[in-house]
Amino acid sequence: MKARVYVTFKPSVLDPQGQTIRAALNGLGHKGIEEVRQGKFFEVTYDASEDLDAISRDVLSNPVIEDYRIEIL
Amino acid sequence: MKARVYVTFKPSVLDPQGQTIRAALNGLGHKGIEEVRQGKFFEVTYDASEDLDAISRDVLSNPVIEDYRIEIL
Repeated sequence: MKARVYVTFKPSVLDPQGQTIRAALNGLGHKGIEEVRQGKFFEVTYDASEDLDAISRDVLSNPVIEDYRIEIL
Repeated sequence: MKARVYVTFKPSVLDPQGQTIRAALNGLGHKGIEEVRQGKFFEVTYDASEDLDAISRDVLSNPVIEDYRIEIL
């Protein structure tokens, strides 16, 4: 089985990396970029015995500051 | 407008970070994880005057080793 796990900061958490990218793009002349938030994702190939939800919660994300979303491919 | 830009290594490029995550998961007892590849994404809010495709190609990704995919929200 194949799935993608998307991990983002919770909306209430500041994303300095995203802000830096936005500032860099504005500086390069792309003034129309209003906001950038950065996230990461994991493309996982696994067999059906694994509980991907538990893995995403316990290992791939930090539930204190991050949300995750699983997309089965 | 809002879009997500997904950036991944090209399939031919080694992904040591993904391999490390797979090895760590296997070590934690998740033996059913066969492969992990890591990527990043950018959630961009922008106005219609911007050419997001050009920005993704020139700034957000490295076209030598990375592919990108744009999803308009």
